[in-house]
Amino acid sequence: MITTESREYFESHQYTSPRLFTSLRRVEENYRTIASALKHATCFYAVKANPHPEILKRLNAIGAYFDVASRGEIEQCLAAGVPATRLSFGSTIKTPDAIAFAYQVGVPLFVFDCLEEARKIAEYAPGAAALCRIDLASQAAKWPLTAKFGCAPDDLLEQLPYLRRLNLTLEGVSFHLGSQLEDVGEWPWALAEAKRIVTRLRTEGIEAPRLNVGGGFPAPYASFTGGLERYCQLVAGALEDAFHDTPVTLMCEPGRAVVADAGVIEARVALKSDRRTHNGAHWLYLDIGVFNGLFEAYSEGIQFRFASDRPSGDPLSPFVISGPTCDSVDVLFEKKPVDLPAGLETGDRIFILDAGAYTTSYATIGFNGFPPLEQIAA
Amino acid sequence: MITTESREYFESHQYTSPRLFTSLRRVEENYRTIASALKHATCFYAVKANPHPEILKRLNAIGAYFDVASRGEIEQCLAAGVPATRLSFGSTIKTPDAIAFAYQVGVPLFVFDCLEEARKIAEYAPGAAALCRIDLASQAAKWPLTAKFGCAPDDLLEQLPYLRRLNLTLEGVSFHLGSQLEDVGEWPWALAEAKRIVTRLRTEGIEAPRLNVGGGFPAPYASFTGGLERYCQLVAGALEDAFHDTPVTLMCEPGRAVVADAGVIEARVALKSDRRTHNGAHWLYLDIGVFNGLFEAYSEGIQFRFASDRPSGDPLSPFVISGPTCDSVDVLFEKKPVDLPAGLETGDRIFILDAGAYTTSYATIGFNGFPPLEQIAA
Repeated sequence: MITTESREYFESHQYTSPRLFTSLRRVEENYRTIASALKHATCFYAVKANPHPEILKRLNAIGAYFDVASRGEIEQCLAAGVPATRLSFGSTIKTPDAIAFAYQVGVPLFVFDCLEEARKIAEYAPGAAALCRIDLASQAAKWPLTAKFGCAPDDLLEQLPYLRRLNLTLEGVSFHLGSQLEDVGEWPWALAEAKRIVTRLRTEGIEAPRLNVGGGFPAPYASFTGGLERYCQLVAGALEDAFHDTPVTLMCEPGRAVVADAGVIEARVALKSDRRTHNGAHWLYLDIGVFNGLFEAYSEGIQFRFASDRPSGDPLSPFVISGPTCDSVDVLFEKKPVDLPAGLETGDRIFILDAGAYTTSYATIGFNGFPPLEQIAA
Repeated sequence: MITTESREYFESHQYTSPRLFTSLRRVEENYRTIASALKHATCFYAVKANPHPEILKRLNAIGAYFDVASRGEIEQCLAAGVPATRLSFGSTIKTPDAIAFAYQVGVPLFVFDCLEEARKIAEYAPGAAALCRIDLASQAAKWPLTAKFGCAPDDLLEQLPYLRRLNLTLEGVSFHLGSQLEDVGEWPWALAEAKRIVTRLRTEGIEAPRLNVGGGFPAPYASFTGGLERYCQLVAGALEDAFHDTPVTLMCEPGRAVVADAGVIEARVALKSDRRTHNGAHWLYLDIGVFNGLFEAYSEGIQFRFASDRPSGDPLSPFVISGPTCDSVDVLFEKKPVDLPAGLETGDRIFILDAGAYTTSYATIGFNGFPPLEQIAA
């Protein structure tokens, strides 16, 4: 959405290059919506989605927890005043240095998905609480997380005797069904499988095992119109169905859903070409593309929505949307052209909606000499 | 290759995060190799491949020309002392501001591929020399440049009467067969088509039309072992065959081939997992991946070669190679696992060879909290 705050900012500050305005009010609302719907789970904001210091400070002020992926993200949280005790080091790929640093500053929870990573945690964070990430990845996610992460649930169960001999405290398991998981119907089977593991952990003496159900809560792109609150309520219902008779300590890790619709990007048409595709769509080149903010549109993965200043009644025309660099992969929408006002011209303003997640952090340091997406969060 | 200079640097400077060492000696040698083989063409270094200030300064010192993609790259060249008269603004997607800036500082040559961009050049750089980029893209390139760029040759010929009425000086055409074009056999047909256009331009009163044959000269990745000098000699031969009887002003735009084998990256194994793929390959997670330097390995596009400090006789084992972020697209080689010493361990040093092109500039500002690839050029 184009928030009131973003419109006011854009109108009062001169444009020089593409910029993202993120509404902190909306970030807080989204976090509260999720935490309130999933009231039995502790809600860790996935910093990777948007690590702007003001976002971290605002969420910290309301007592949020944070999921971090690296030493760099831990340092960003600490710099924003977040107590280390409210961090979870959820990455399964951690350098020894990063583990040692996290342990030293007081991060209480670590995740592994193989014996070697468990051994590293035991060595560099001796005695620390740990979760094993299991592979329940969903194929339905827009940005799936398969193969790279997670051990097979039965492998974990086989490895339990070995893990008990390591100097760490196995507290439970985590999983992640994949980012932008629009089909809430994927949750029940995953939770049923998680329950099987959790139940087994209870027989091994872990009283109320921790279960981190990850993120995946969808943002309102063109492909999803279901609404965040409703989605979270359905997940809460699925959790209740699965665990009403099984003591479990729940946590979740939303990132995208907290920040996406809080952000709107202002950009410009760099060139409206008279060249057309064989389907008759004009090429529309923006001053923003895959390399300075819209990496998730690569291969037409995330279907961002666009708006312009043209009157809403203007006739529409299909456009192939492309970024500004001399790189042919820097094309945003070609297979599925986007309908935009036919009268658009070079220099016209374009808004990219629901763009607060995975935009600034994915921007390159300056490919083709274009500066990374600027962010204002207020 | 692991240059002498890079090995000395790595041995004498403590490691903190992945770093690229680029040998300026080798950059100069490569530029001279190309310029000498293609002696009838003016050789413009494509800044986008690696815009490090020391590289620009070294090439400037030997009188090189430069192809730029944006106002940002023009500013980088000027800051390195390059005279604006040795720049070509080769991007076909330029904001009006960028054209006006280039014109004001004295950039003499601009490129368009549609009437609207030609009109912009005429308006913001009145009277400037311009080339029309035509679409002769090769499907054989590793990183093809199709569809997004270039007008059909016959469309250009039809538009000539209109272009003559604009306030610009049409001097000729440019084309680009695509980056890392390993099959030199693609050149003759492209040059034959270019000759057809050039010949027609001569009948329109352009005495010795400019022909920018682009870049695409391949770097020595796993997929190409032909050698740069030999490749350039074959291209020179094809140029001679095509244009020996047609006056033409030749230019070329190598980027990758100038810097790739001058650079070597030092990285570390973050985790050697005991998990295996169904083919039996272990997952090997490095502290560098798609988002902090190796974007071109995405979807296994560019096949970087790896080396380690293990003795050369050590037994090898297939590894799936992955980056360190919590993102499943951050996987470098999965379909084609890479044979590396079986004894590799967490913390071991890894070299990534021929990594001087399209690595630093593609790095994100800090996705997942990992710093962008550091570069030392000396």
